[in-house]
Amino acid sequence: MVRHGQSSANATNTYTGWDDVDLTQKGVQQAKEAGYKLGQINDINLKKVHTSVLKRAIKTANLILEKQELLYLPMLKNWRLNERHYGGLGGLNKDETRKLYGVKTVQKWRRSFNAIPPQSDNKHFDYRYHLIPKQSLPGSESLKMASDRIIPYYEEQIAPELRLGNDQLIVAHGSTIRALIKYLEAISDKNIDGVEVKNSEIIQYQLDDNLAILAKKRY
Amino acid sequence: MVRHGQSSANATNTYTGWDDVDLTQKGVQQAKEAGYKLGQINDINLKKVHTSVLKRAIKTANLILEKQELLYLPMLKNWRLNERHYGGLGGLNKDETRKLYGVKTVQKWRRSFNAIPPQSDNKHFDYRYHLIPKQSLPGSESLKMASDRIIPYYEEQIAPELRLGNDQLIVAHGSTIRALIKYLEAISDKNIDGVEVKNSEIIQYQLDDNLAILAKKRY
Repeated sequence: MVRHGQSSANATNTYTGWDDVDLTQKGVQQAKEAGYKLGQINDINLKKVHTSVLKRAIKTANLILEKQELLYLPMLKNWRLNERHYGGLGGLNKDETRKLYGVKTVQKWRRSFNAIPPQSDNKHFDYRYHLIPKQSLPGSESLKMASDRIIPYYEEQIAPELRLGNDQLIVAHGSTIRALIKYLEAISDKNIDGVEVKNSEIIQYQLDDNLAILAKKRY
Repeated sequence: MVRHGQSSANATNTYTGWDDVDLTQKGVQQAKEAGYKLGQINDINLKKVHTSVLKRAIKTANLILEKQELLYLPMLKNWRLNERHYGGLGGLNKDETRKLYGVKTVQKWRRSFNAIPPQSDNKHFDYRYHLIPKQSLPGSESLKMASDRIIPYYEEQIAPELRLGNDQLIVAHGSTIRALIKYLEAISDKNIDGVEVKNSEIIQYQLDDNLAILAKKRY
């Protein structure tokens, strides 16, 4: 799993969620470096790539593949791998949000499993979301709500490939990857608070035949 | 349909076929311009993208999508949309080839429907071709042979989507697009000689419910 490179919102310390912000120049460089590093890891034999429908992840995935001469690999883009929907926090600076709502509340929204940020009217109705019933489109998500759409994708699209022995690359977002880590490592709702993933960080799991973890490495 | 932007082999006037050469800086620019032009055409509502497993086409497709803010569209990458396999001509300069084999012979190999360039031992066995039985991997192809793998892809993957009214983008290669033009316009084996497609040229077909051509435009 790789988190996307620095986005324009990361650079200004702003909440984004489903807003489709671009990579910065630094983010592009980070993505290329992640591609180089991935290429240096022995015994990885990528067969398929999974990413969200947000360009910061898709571009990171493409830059990684290009660096490894693997642009021809199948790439699935699915809204279920999107960043958590940050609702009314979208577009707000993180420091300002703390002033507005208080440090404790904001920390809860950011790191706890169940807290839901304020709802947003700014729903996302474009074509990439046409398969979601409109009434199911979130106006804001807790990590739990995001997890409830991410894990079925993992179980239906990724796990069956892993069971066949096919190495899979997931290029996604902070919350997507936290949700997957929580699920794979069976981390409690309480302890997921402490888990963070940096831009362009690589997390490699080696799994056994039952998809239990044999080894984990971070790069 | 869009032909990829200028490749390093186009720049040096060299045969390539299945060799996986990159875009030049000019080719990147051409791809972006094609994306801009496509975005200016009214009544196109892209729903899916089809390309080959060669990076000059995949990168062109990604640059087009990025320019149009459509990176999230599903993109299928299939060897059936590859450039014609140029066999023993791969890597040779086109002028030198004429000196070596004579203008007439080379013209036949390049433009006629049935002529097969000399075989190459340099077959392509990497992962992207793992679904093709090894004995079926071509060592060289006539336009007819390429067509025989391209048209089934059109009929199975593209035509059903078109019948649903879903606009499709095909980003491919000179010979791939010539084969599709020949098929769609029912051009005779003899007359396909005259059909050429430039780097990053856009060919737009408007089709009726039976996929017969209502209008054709080139950009």
